Amino acid sequence: MKKLVVKDYEALSEMTANLVLSTMLQDKRVNLSLTGGSTPKRMYELLVDKMAGVEDLSNVFYYTFDETPIRNQEDVVVGFDNLDGLNRCFFEPAAVEAGHLTAMNDENYLDFPQLMADDGGLDLMLIGMGDDGHFCANMPECTQYDQEVYRVELSDIYPWNAPYQESIGENHSDYMYTLGLPALLKVKHVVLIVNGVKKAQAVKRALEGPLDAAFPSSYLRLLPNLTVILDEEAAELIEK
Amino acid sequence: MKKLVVKDYEALSEMTANLVLSTMLQDKRVNLSLTGGSTPKRMYELLVDKMAGVEDLSNVFYYTFDETPIRNQEDVVVGFDNLDGLNRCFFEPAAVEAGHLTAMNDENYLDFPQLMADDGGLDLMLIGMGDDGHFCANMPECTQYDQEVYRVELSDIYPWNAPYQESIGENHSDYMYTLGLPALLKVKHVVLIVNGVKKAQAVKRALEGPLDAAFPSSYLRLLPNLTVILDEEAAELIEK
Amino acid sequence: MKKLVVKDYEALSEMTANLVLSTMLQDKRVNLSLTGGSTPKRMYELLVDKMAGVEDLSNVFYYTFDETPIRNQEDVVVGFDNLDGLNRCFFEPAAVEAGHLTAMNDENYLDFPQLMADDGGLDLMLIGMGDDGHFCANMPECTQYDQEVYRVELSDIYPWNAPYQESIGENHSDYMYTLGLPALLKVKHVVLIVNGVKKAQAVKRALEGPLDAAFPSSYLRLLPNLTVILDEEAAELIEK
Amino acid sequence: MKKLVVKDYEALSEMTANLVLSTMLQDKRVNLSLTGGSTPKRMYELLVDKMAGVEDLSNVFYYTFDETPIRNQEDVVVGFDNLDGLNRCFFEPAAVEAGHLTAMNDENYLDFPQLMADDGGLDLMLIGMGDDGHFCANMPECTQYDQEVYRVELSDIYPWNAPYQESIGENHSDYMYTLGLPALLKVKHVVLIVNGVKKAQAVKRALEGPLDAAFPSSYLRLLPNLTVILDEEAAELIEK
Repeated sequence: MKKLVVKDYEALSEMTANLVLSTMLQDKRVNLSLTGGSTPKRMYELLVDKMAGVEDLSNVFYYTFDETPIRNQEDVVVGFDNLDGLNRCFFEPAAVEAGHLTAMNDENYLDFPQLMADDGGLDLMLIGMGDDGHFCANMPECTQYDQEVYRVELSDIYPWNAPYQESIGENHSDYMYTLGLPALLKVKHVVLIVNGVKKAQAVKRALEGPLDAAFPSSYLRLLPNLTVILDEEAAELIEK
Repeated sequence: MKKLVVKDYEALSEMTANLVLSTMLQDKRVNLSLTGGSTPKRMYELLVDKMAGVEDLSNVFYYTFDETPIRNQEDVVVGFDNLDGLNRCFFEPAAVEAGHLTAMNDENYLDFPQLMADDGGLDLMLIGMGDDGHFCANMPECTQYDQEVYRVELSDIYPWNAPYQESIGENHSDYMYTLGLPALLKVKHVVLIVNGVKKAQAVKRALEGPLDAAFPSSYLRLLPNLTVILDEEAAELIEK
Repeated sequence: MKKLVVKDYEALSEMTANLVLSTMLQDKRVNLSLTGGSTPKRMYELLVDKMAGVEDLSNVFYYTFDETPIRNQEDVVVGFDNLDGLNRCFFEPAAVEAGHLTAMNDENYLDFPQLMADDGGLDLMLIGMGDDGHFCANMPECTQYDQEVYRVELSDIYPWNAPYQESIGENHSDYMYTLGLPALLKVKHVVLIVNGVKKAQAVKRALEGPLDAAFPSSYLRLLPNLTVILDEEAAELIEK
Repeated sequence: MKKLVVKDYEALSEMTANLVLSTMLQDKRVNLSLTGGSTPKRMYELLVDKMAGVEDLSNVFYYTFDETPIRNQEDVVVGFDNLDGLNRCFFEPAAVEAGHLTAMNDENYLDFPQLMADDGGLDLMLIGMGDDGHFCANMPECTQYDQEVYRVELSDIYPWNAPYQESIGENHSDYMYTLGLPALLKVKHVVLIVNGVKKAQAVKRALEGPLDAAFPSSYLRLLPNLTVILDEEAAELIEK
């Protein structure tokens, strides 16, 4: 693991945007999988600006790494929790063309490992982590550590499910899909970004605690080429 | 070739510094060969600042790619044209440790290809080019295109030699050494930076003219993974 | 360049078949481009046998690297000089599935560099060379050293054209297409096989002579990861 | 995982020797870590023969991956369980030069991850597995899954220790060292070879059972590029 501590959220966003852009700037196909959520919001603003200065990004392809289809009461999919957010904060402002984005959904999720392999594998994956220790949609209660991709049936036994269902209002979600640990182990370079004092305890447990199946991000240390970028708040409990 | 045109020298310096830093930020050994000269001056200022924020760069190793030993009248080496410049603008301000720098000299230049191979090969090489078409010390009059490394005896038949000898005052140089095209073809990623209207004609000839043994930088197009970063002035004659 | 001299044609065929098969035996997509012609005939017999023992080769994809469409007197394509030969000696006996083979033709040859890049690039390319110094269809009289792919109009000014046209009987060829040097420079590993005393002089010139635009295989020394496998006859003039 | 089933021990040995040799035949540094034990005995005989036909193997470097120093009653090291065996069956008959072999011992084992990283990382690792599920010296009772390398104090609580101590006669061992899972996850290509009906149950559990900390080889499925070569006996219980 290569660990970096930067001053604050702005510095983390700037360094991460530079790292993502630099990976794009090669004369070969570059396959990226980038996280949604709140952590990368500012990073995407900076990245979209930086990408605007690059004339040709036709060598760059994107893959989502998890998804929760959202259905209405008639069980028709009306949204995708991850893709919709990424569209708003990145794919649309960056004007990513349709053919350059492969989004996980009900039909194709099982094919994702093969599909990414057929495209030459992921060059860079950008992930965050939750204070409950989840990465991608690998949650403490239901991570399948030996699966490249898997589906989780959303159930009331998961403490995060009721709040999640509530958050999507009148709609509901039955399942979520996610890449798992073996898929991340095949990525050439994984970058984990974490900011804020709220996650300091989780960062300590992930990076310095034991491997713990009940805390999925502790397994990230197994990744062969992992860069961790933390702001000072997120890093405040770890060894200097 | 991946070609980028940025607004000006400052933007070129910033993008290049980010690209070099991003390459460093991996959990593996990273071997770099970075150019001296005037083009990267501002880039090094930015890079040194950025590196100051990264606690551990012990995975990064540097190799010079050409050299001209400077001798006094007693034929004792009193300086190295390339290394001394790089020391001033980068290795010293960046506090690069001795064991992390391999500098080409009279004794070891022939071993450089083997030595770099034994260290796992170069990950990134940053080069400039001259308006006479040279890259590294591959000059129009004396480039040996099939040599990984070679020595050139400095001779009055070379138009640039008299001005060069004059520039080093009371001292003199007998030889220069340089990595050649086959060595660059083995580098995982080569970045060429050029700025200023003075080089616009040379940029056009290098990137769009025929392969021409009398204009060495025209051969850079053969590189398997080349990123060219130009400011608008340097790019003003090339196809949009 | 890594150079190997083996006893005879059988040993060369065996070593090459093992090298090709070993490249296939990985848990990732493997893109191969394999030569036609007479040199690999025995190698393909051995390779087909060895592949029969491997249950799943769905990770392996093939690309032809040159082609000469053959037309009848009505100018309808009735054959492909390279593909037809490869079909007979390899693709058919090895039962390579249609979706795993991308063959160069009139329509797609210009797209080949992009198409191979989009598929993640070639992992292994196996080539031969002619006693006239050609590799792929890069002939002494008409090689375009700076083109990833190009078309040559077959003309009576080429000494090999009349015999070639004669060899295809009542049919004729107007053009040939070939990958060029920059495309080979992007391949992760290129293997050159040469056998027989008839080519000993050409081997010496290719491996030890000067870079010579009139002898294309002399440029193969520029390849970043080239393995040359020779039988003793082909190697008899080169330095031990 | 890429899984191959070959007829018998001889076929497994032949295919594995070819795969190891083919990896060596590149124009770049190749770092190998090869297993001792009984499984590869025939493979080494074949490999030594094949290597004899290759003039220059100076690009190949070897690293042992585990070790048990053997001491006499005065606590002086008198042997190395792994290295001594590898010397006999491979390093000596293959005439591997001293500078090309890095052997793990009391002094350097903690430095092995850094040392391998500094040398550019391992290209190929060849391992076996035990019917108790161990790989390298990662034993069911004491594997530390998050350590790149670690030391185990040999203790009577381990069921295999008493028989082991007995096997080394008047001498004794206090410790063993081994690379762990995170080190294997960094290897570009890992090849697992298993033969014989005696291991069929263990193969089934490793390849098809759950991830199980009490059965270390079940974790090998996490490796990003793993090739498993089995003879028919070892494969007889797994899914066709």
